[in-house]
Amino acid sequence: MTRVGRPRSAAADAAILRAARELLVERGIGGASIEEVARRAGVSKVTVYRRWDSREALLAAAIESSADGLPGRTHTEADAAELDPEMTYDEMVTLVAAALPRAAEILASEEYRALLAQAFGSRFTHPEIMAAYWENHIVPRRRVAIPILARAVAEGRLPPETDVEAVLDMTIGALLYRLLRPGEITPAEMLDHLRRVYRQAGLLPDA
Amino acid sequence: MTRVGRPRSAAADAAILRAARELLVERGIGGASIEEVARRAGVSKVTVYRRWDSREALLAAAIESSADGLPGRTHTEADAAELDPEMTYDEMVTLVAAALPRAAEILASEEYRALLAQAFGSRFTHPEIMAAYWENHIVPRRRVAIPILARAVAEGRLPPETDVEAVLDMTIGALLYRLLRPGEITPAEMLDHLRRVYRQAGLLPDA
Repeated sequence: MTRVGRPRSAAADAAILRAARELLVERGIGGASIEEVARRAGVSKVTVYRRWDSREALLAAAIESSADGLPGRTHTEADAAELDPEMTYDEMVTLVAAALPRAAEILASEEYRALLAQAFGSRFTHPEIMAAYWENHIVPRRRVAIPILARAVAEGRLPPETDVEAVLDMTIGALLYRLLRPGEITPAEMLDHLRRVYRQAGLLPDA
Repeated sequence: MTRVGRPRSAAADAAILRAARELLVERGIGGASIEEVARRAGVSKVTVYRRWDSREALLAAAIESSADGLPGRTHTEADAAELDPEMTYDEMVTLVAAALPRAAEILASEEYRALLAQAFGSRFTHPEIMAAYWENHIVPRRRVAIPILARAVAEGRLPPETDVEAVLDMTIGALLYRLLRPGEITPAEMLDHLRRVYRQAGLLPDA
């Protein structure tokens, strides 16, 4: 097959995602049309459609990309890469503790919080966006903590009657709750919140 | 002072709030203008402005009213009314347990979940709505659980190192997390979720 058109350009991808994030923050989902995104990114609508086949897919990718622009990966992606099932509980939570400062920095950014609010706000108005965000962003973060809590129960660090699924819902929920509440938050405040919640959940050693 | 105009009508209040809720669910915050709300409620714009001095105040009240239409009060309002600081922990959590089925019914309603998503989605685009919702709706629910957890620690039902503030963030967060995720939820599923989270938090007796 003869190759038609220019090769996919990583620079164009990045410009489109950045334009979509900016428009989402400034104007909400209603204001982030493919046409507006293309204009701001300095590309044609065809260039956008060549990469994402719907506005919903583009906006979900834009929301997901909001953590990529910051240095490093989110704490849970780092955990997923490094957590070895042979590790002890202490080894696991030491890795978690080391990853939290960078995670706090990412989570506390104004852009991340604005896009998170957009994702949740789209829950009923644009269910495809929220479904894609949930599947690609929330579920993997949830999955990665399961072996830590299972190990905590197995080693007797958490009581045998611990409801691991409930603890996970509570841990992720507490982060969402803090990120979505009104007002500002500094990375240091977010780090303090993460440490208190993770410690209470058994995802960090006792103080 | 001579009374001017008709007395405030509870029926008009209810019609305006219902119209605002419907428009929020159908069209989002951008689609719920004072003009549209007035038209759907069958009242004049002046009638709306006589009651709420801004669109944001009206929409916050509409979101807050979403639990009122269902029978009874939410579980935390019931708790606030009935919780006596002289009660034992067992007496407190018995009241909580009794209130959960009705709370689950309210929380699982499609309208409540849609409006909750709108409130959180407005976090950056319309901060006044979210601020009013948070202050009038979330903070009071949080406050009411503090004496129960404090009593649980005092009676040795929770460990002395329990971080009560973190547990509250996790409990409310877990409810938001479940209510905002994609897909449907039945009242029975919501009740199961509430019971697991409340039990893990120490807000219900052990199974």
